[in-house]
Amino acid sequence: MNGAESLVRTLVGGGVDVCFTNPGTSEMHFVAALDRVEGMRCVLGLFEGVVTGAADGYARMADKPAATLLHLGPGLGNGFANLHNARRAMTPIVNIVGDHATYHRNFDAPLTSDIEGIARPVSHWVKTSPDAKSVAKDGAEAITASMTAPGQIATLILPADTAWNDSDGPAEVEAAPARPMVSEDALLDAAAALRSGEPTLLLLTGQAIREEGLRQAGRIAAKTGCKVMAMTSNGRMARGAGRFACPRIPYPIDQALGVLQPFRHIILVGAKPPVGFFAYPGKPSELHPQGCQIHRLARPGDHLLHALEWLAAELDAPLDGVAVQKLERPQMKDSGPLTIESIALTVAALMPENAIIADESVTSGRNLPGLTMGAPPHDWLQVPGGSIGGGMPMATGAAIACPDRKVINLEGDGSGMYTLQALWTQAREGLNVLTVIFSNRSYAILKGELMNVGAENPGRKALDMLDLGRPDLDWVGMARGMGVEASRATTTEEFNKQFAAGLASQGPVLIEAVI
Amino acid sequence: MNGAESLVRTLVGGGVDVCFTNPGTSEMHFVAALDRVEGMRCVLGLFEGVVTGAADGYARMADKPAATLLHLGPGLGNGFANLHNARRAMTPIVNIVGDHATYHRNFDAPLTSDIEGIARPVSHWVKTSPDAKSVAKDGAEAITASMTAPGQIATLILPADTAWNDSDGPAEVEAAPARPMVSEDALLDAAAALRSGEPTLLLLTGQAIREEGLRQAGRIAAKTGCKVMAMTSNGRMARGAGRFACPRIPYPIDQALGVLQPFRHIILVGAKPPVGFFAYPGKPSELHPQGCQIHRLARPGDHLLHALEWLAAELDAPLDGVAVQKLERPQMKDSGPLTIESIALTVAALMPENAIIADESVTSGRNLPGLTMGAPPHDWLQVPGGSIGGGMPMATGAAIACPDRKVINLEGDGSGMYTLQALWTQAREGLNVLTVIFSNRSYAILKGELMNVGAENPGRKALDMLDLGRPDLDWVGMARGMGVEASRATTTEEFNKQFAAGLASQGPVLIEAVI
Repeated sequence: MNGAESLVRTLVGGGVDVCFTNPGTSEMHFVAALDRVEGMRCVLGLFEGVVTGAADGYARMADKPAATLLHLGPGLGNGFANLHNARRAMTPIVNIVGDHATYHRNFDAPLTSDIEGIARPVSHWVKTSPDAKSVAKDGAEAITASMTAPGQIATLILPADTAWNDSDGPAEVEAAPARPMVSEDALLDAAAALRSGEPTLLLLTGQAIREEGLRQAGRIAAKTGCKVMAMTSNGRMARGAGRFACPRIPYPIDQALGVLQPFRHIILVGAKPPVGFFAYPGKPSELHPQGCQIHRLARPGDHLLHALEWLAAELDAPLDGVAVQKLERPQMKDSGPLTIESIALTVAALMPENAIIADESVTSGRNLPGLTMGAPPHDWLQVPGGSIGGGMPMATGAAIACPDRKVINLEGDGSGMYTLQALWTQAREGLNVLTVIFSNRSYAILKGELMNVGAENPGRKALDMLDLGRPDLDWVGMARGMGVEASRATTTEEFNKQFAAGLASQGPVLIEAVI
Repeated sequence: MNGAESLVRTLVGGGVDVCFTNPGTSEMHFVAALDRVEGMRCVLGLFEGVVTGAADGYARMADKPAATLLHLGPGLGNGFANLHNARRAMTPIVNIVGDHATYHRNFDAPLTSDIEGIARPVSHWVKTSPDAKSVAKDGAEAITASMTAPGQIATLILPADTAWNDSDGPAEVEAAPARPMVSEDALLDAAAALRSGEPTLLLLTGQAIREEGLRQAGRIAAKTGCKVMAMTSNGRMARGAGRFACPRIPYPIDQALGVLQPFRHIILVGAKPPVGFFAYPGKPSELHPQGCQIHRLARPGDHLLHALEWLAAELDAPLDGVAVQKLERPQMKDSGPLTIESIALTVAALMPENAIIADESVTSGRNLPGLTMGAPPHDWLQVPGGSIGGGMPMATGAAIACPDRKVINLEGDGSGMYTLQALWTQAREGLNVLTVIFSNRSYAILKGELMNVGAENPGRKALDMLDLGRPDLDWVGMARGMGVEASRATTTEEFNKQFAAGLASQGPVLIEAVI
């Protein structure tokens, strides 16, 4: 058995049974091994940003890593941006990056580059296998590293000869260390803040915003009157009817400052102290008001659920009495011009139970979180690294992880263009993804940001750089060109009909919503 | 004048007057400054790989750098692969990468990453501006660094506050150091090899394969009987009638070994010792035969033209008598099934004088170099880094540099998918690019490589990863979706008609050649 096969067997044995790939020559032995090992599902992406973004979406929903298979430094480079998003989402991923044979690297062949150097800024764990007999053990270590809480990026570099030379067979994968419990000091400090009677915010992310974490936070809120919020961007959040509702800190800096202004205490549960997404002249970087104390109850990798349960118990919060969200759908409009408001109403009115929302709608989605609060229970995935182009690949991976759930990808036209190749993978795999493109033909967010950073009176040349018109993108043509059923909606009536049909379809569907 | 404006003025003053951009919030002051400074042409790409690849193609044809404008680490990451190609092509580029404001970086906001770490593997020069008053001087240094022979990647990181705070105005750009002359020892060593009577190869790249360099090499060949070849992949090569014809070392390892087998001496003129593109089991990494001596006449950054002239003079090679290529076009086929052979014949028969060939045709283009040898004079651009996705952006940048020349982009369907967003930029800018997609619906090169690396008997799962069918890509639909006129050819007759019409058109045109 060669090194490549020993690695594939180690991955499958360790529960990593989906591999998103865009392989090249140096990965051919890994590809060939796929046919000799049962149980690995291989999914081709036509661009590496699709591969890494899909691995991110998959792991968020499967709660275990996928592998990626990438071709040397440039392949990893192409996948970098969505690995950045995955890192911020605290997603476990095992990257396998092929390299030249060990003896070939010194000759500086055209594809030679510093792969470890490229991997390091986006990986928690990086290793280059020295020989074929090490590959399985290194792969096992990579899986363990990726599963270490809260979820890590592990990048294993596989020189071609370590793939084709003889190995000693697969290796056992050790379980990742258990999430540490928080300290009693941290617990009592948080409890004291909550008992102080002063305005207090529980700020959550990660494990704390799954259904059970939210319920525990809801107990604490019911007992103490504290507010509960999530970070601005989160990897995965449980929402909808029957769950404790938890708003997010808004993205716009002035709104965020306003929302946080009342608090005298912010208790971090896996979250980081809130800071501006960007710096803006004359505005603070830190968003909490002066005099507000930051208490760190739990770091992202701690046992957040236990911390919340323990805190609730410490506060004698009753087990029941959590104010859960009622099922409340808005009334959708039947007709009229198509707007971001009318789209949001329709999505909120029609989205099915257990939907997965892959949200990269940027400015166009601003009404969605509020309007979908009372929709049937669902999961909401964001792009926490802020690196544009995460949405469509993330939707792709989520659909692979959850074939029985409808994935609704809400996508800006500008952001969609970074990784539109994901549509082809959706078509090939017959994935249950309904994509809504908010076609406003501009980088609308940047028009606002131009003002926010004080760049006044933009002229034609500046505005041209924020404008996606001339020519208009035809998303219907592009989607069909990649095998995805697509239609264009220019009125609310058209959108409602197409959205309902898309929900009823099993394969991938795209709606270009012209707003 | 703020830092951003001081930088734009420094760039324009230093001759850098084209900027390929995909900006975000941290680059808004740079964008706003574009309207206050005359003389900077700004070209929007909808993905950063388009931006960096276009800068590469532009500089190869303009012989001076373009600037890129990229958004923090992920934006640079998305542009990484085509910067890798540019580095291998020895192309000058000035990257401007926005970052968070200096005081904001420590807060680890979502887009924070180690930008210098990402830049280093692909840049010869990296600097982060510390304050607004340094930005112009740093920009001037970046231009000088990029222009240092043979051409370098300079990456300047611009924290947002260095863009918006007050500067001292633009800075003067120092000329890059002149290319050093080669040593007399190196010259005499090369001359001795050429006089030895033993089979000798002059191996060229860079400046040496422009028209005049080739002419000097031709003088040496006429006098000594040596062979002249170029590296397997080159940034830009002058070819066609009236020029000294110079074949390239073939890509397939066995062919390359065969071609080099006869030589006892290889004289490097800007080239590197020939090595395999990849390692293959049982095959050598170094391609020259045992007992063949490698002589380094000139390093890539040396004055290659002077070295060749000096060597020709040392050998008393006559000024005339260079065997230049005759105008010899093949007869194209009038009808029959469309094949890579019939396409090559048509391209060779019809390509106009002064065409720029942007070649990422991979396996489908294997007949093209031979058949186009006697075409009217033209330039040939390759993807010397081997990072797939260089072709369409490179064609885009070349067309910006040379609006009066026809750019013919020969593109694989697999490679084209990495950066297809380039088509939109071609449409917006009305560029004179004729793209031919070789639509074979597979990563054909990898089917061969699977065998070459000894991965035998591939099964269905392996072959699926090399197959672009299910669903077939509809390039006509995708191109039209981005505003580019497109058609599909399935017979030679159709292709000939569409190719001739594409040559006659001024704007961008795409032909999907189904083979």
